[in-house]
Amino acid sequence: MPLVHVDLAERSYDVVVENGILSQAGEKIAALRAGAKAAVISDQNVDPHHGDALAASLKSAGIEASRHVIPAGEASKSFAQVSSLHSELAQARHDRSSFVIALGGGVVGDLAGFVAATFYRGVPFVQIPTTIVAQVDSSVGGKTGINLPEGKNLVGSFHQPRLVLVDPEVLRTLPSREFREGFAEVIKHAAIRDASMLDELAQLDPDSPDVPADLIARNIAIKARIVEEDERETAGTRALLNFGHTIGHGIEAALPYGELLHGEAISLGLRAAIHLSKKRSNLAENGAQSVLQLLKHFRLPVVLPEKIGSDTVLQRLSRDKKFNAGAIRFVLLKGPGDAFLSESVTQDDLTEAIEHLREAL
Amino acid sequence: MPLVHVDLAERSYDVVVENGILSQAGEKIAALRAGAKAAVISDQNVDPHHGDALAASLKSAGIEASRHVIPAGEASKSFAQVSSLHSELAQARHDRSSFVIALGGGVVGDLAGFVAATFYRGVPFVQIPTTIVAQVDSSVGGKTGINLPEGKNLVGSFHQPRLVLVDPEVLRTLPSREFREGFAEVIKHAAIRDASMLDELAQLDPDSPDVPADLIARNIAIKARIVEEDERETAGTRALLNFGHTIGHGIEAALPYGELLHGEAISLGLRAAIHLSKKRSNLAENGAQSVLQLLKHFRLPVVLPEKIGSDTVLQRLSRDKKFNAGAIRFVLLKGPGDAFLSESVTQDDLTEAIEHLREAL
Repeated sequence: MPLVHVDLAERSYDVVVENGILSQAGEKIAALRAGAKAAVISDQNVDPHHGDALAASLKSAGIEASRHVIPAGEASKSFAQVSSLHSELAQARHDRSSFVIALGGGVVGDLAGFVAATFYRGVPFVQIPTTIVAQVDSSVGGKTGINLPEGKNLVGSFHQPRLVLVDPEVLRTLPSREFREGFAEVIKHAAIRDASMLDELAQLDPDSPDVPADLIARNIAIKARIVEEDERETAGTRALLNFGHTIGHGIEAALPYGELLHGEAISLGLRAAIHLSKKRSNLAENGAQSVLQLLKHFRLPVVLPEKIGSDTVLQRLSRDKKFNAGAIRFVLLKGPGDAFLSESVTQDDLTEAIEHLREAL
Repeated sequence: MPLVHVDLAERSYDVVVENGILSQAGEKIAALRAGAKAAVISDQNVDPHHGDALAASLKSAGIEASRHVIPAGEASKSFAQVSSLHSELAQARHDRSSFVIALGGGVVGDLAGFVAATFYRGVPFVQIPTTIVAQVDSSVGGKTGINLPEGKNLVGSFHQPRLVLVDPEVLRTLPSREFREGFAEVIKHAAIRDASMLDELAQLDPDSPDVPADLIARNIAIKARIVEEDERETAGTRALLNFGHTIGHGIEAALPYGELLHGEAISLGLRAAIHLSKKRSNLAENGAQSVLQLLKHFRLPVVLPEKIGSDTVLQRLSRDKKFNAGAIRFVLLKGPGDAFLSESVTQDDLTEAIEHLREAL
C-alpha cells in the first residue's frame, strides 16, 4: 500500500492510502495508543455513508468511541459549532486522555482538528478524509481552523494529526460535482511541483469514481515535502500551496457560502494566476494551456459568474491573509511544475486578472 | 532588576520584575520585534488604572496599538468573548504580522493568550500581569484557556508568551481582598518547593501594598523551573502546581462565579490538602501548621461556607481534569517544601477532607 511519511520531528506521522482501509481503521488507530477513548466527529452527509463502518471497526479493535455529527457545509466552521462540540465532548466524559477522529471532508477536518487542538489544551487526533480535496490536501499539514464573519480561516491552530487514513473507495459516494471539484487542488499540485502529473491527469476519465491510490499518494507526497520544509508557513515554501487561492478565495467570499464549491472557486483562481504568470513571469502559452485545458477536462468553471463584480472580489481579497503587512505576495509559475512567490503583482494586475475571467476560454 | 529566564528551547523568554516597568513597557516590547502592530487586551477594572500609561509607552516606542477592553471577571473566559475579540482584532486590521499584549489579571492573561494562540493560527504575545496571582503564577508557563458550562479551563492552548513584564507597583491599585487572595498561590509555591519562604511570608505585613520584587521573582523562579521540567504537564512535575487546587476548584465551582475569589477557594483547598497529607503522607503537625497559620495571617478563608454541600463539591471535582482515566491523582506534602503526586487518595478521603473544612481552625 502507498504510505507517505510526514517528517516533522516529534510531530511526525504516516499517511496510509489504501482501498478499503476504512474498515480496518480500528486496528490502525489502536496501534497508535493515542488515548483511552475516542470522539468521532463527522457531518450529516458523511456519517450516513461511513459512520457505522468506522464505529464497528473501532469497536472490534476495543476502542470506546462517542459519535458527534455536525451539519454539513462551511457554516459549521464557526465558534458556535466549536463551542457546542466541546460541550458535547465534556458531557460524553472525554478528558485529556481522549482523542479525536475526523471523518469527513475539509470542513470536518478543519473543525475537528481545531477542537482537538483546544480540548484540554490539546489532545491527539486522527484524520479520515472523505473528499479528494481533504485526501490530497487539507488532511495533511496540521492547519486547523474556523471562519469569522470577517474572513475565512482567521482563527485556528497548527495541530498535526497523529495518523491520516485515506480510503480512495469512499470517493465513490461523492456526487459528481463534489467529486470533480477536488481535481482543482490536484491540478494545483501538478502545476506548482510536478509537470509530468499534468499529462497523466489529461488521461484520467473525469467521470470514473475510481481514483488511483498512487495518484492520491503522489499528491500527498507533494504536500508533505512542502510542509516538512515550512511547517508554519513562515519560510515562504508553504505559501506556494496558495497558488490560485488568493483570487480564488476572493471569488469564493464574494458569493454566499456554497454557491461555488471551494474547488470551483480555486479553478477560477488558477486561471487568473496563470494569466498573471504569463504577464509577470513569462509563462509560455503551451505551459499555460497544459493547466487551463485540464480545468476544462474536469469541467471546472473557468468563466466568472456575471453577477460577481470585480470590486467585490478585490474587497474580499484585502481581508485575505496572503497580504503581509500591506505588500501583495502572489504565487506565480515560471513554467509547469515551477512555482515561486512573487512580490511583483500590483493591485491593477489583480483587477486585470479578474476581468480576464469574464472572457470565454 | 530581578530577571527570571524561562528556558524552553525556541520558546524561551524572560520575565522582568521591576517597580515602575509599566512605563517602560514600550521599549522592552519594541526590542522583541514581535510584529508590526499590537492589540492590547485589558479589562474594565485594569484599563482605567494602567491602560493610558501602557498606551503612551507603546506610542513613544513607535508601536502602533489598538485597545480592547473586556468586562472584568471569570465570565469573560467564554467562547462568546473570544469570538468577539477575534472579530475586533480583524476589524482593527490586525493580521498574522500583529501581536497581542495582555494587561490584567489571570482572566485577561488566559483569555488574551488564547486569542493570541488562535488568531491567524497563532501570533506572539506579551504578558503584563497586574494581580499577585497573575504575576507569580498564571502569566508564566503558557497555559491559556477559557471555561465551558461543563467546567473551568476545559478549552485552551499551550502558547508561551514572548516576554512577561511584572511591575509590583501596580499591585497598589488592588482592593484589599483581591490583594490578599494572591498570597494563596505564594503560600502554595512555598509549601511545595521552598520551605524557607514560609518563614519569610510570616514576617510580611498582609496589609502593606508593597510586595518585594525579590519575593515575586523567587515565586516566578519556582514556577519557571517546574514549567521547564514539564512544559505540557505530561511528566507529573507540573501537576505539583495543582497542590490545593483539586478540592479548591471543586469549591470554586460549587458557588456562583466570584462569590469566593480564586485564591480564597485555593486557601480552602490548601487546608484540605494539608489534612490529607497528614493522613496519607505523614506530614508532621508543625509542618502542617507552618502552612495553615500563613493562610490565617493573610486572612484567607479556612472554613467552608455552610451553604456548600460536600456532595456538590465532590460532583464538581469529578469534572476536574486532575482525574486521569478514572484514577485519582492528588498532590500531597511529605514535609514543607516537599510535594509529590500521590495515587493513594480515595473518594472517601476526599469527603473526609471536605468535611474537615467545616471545623474551626
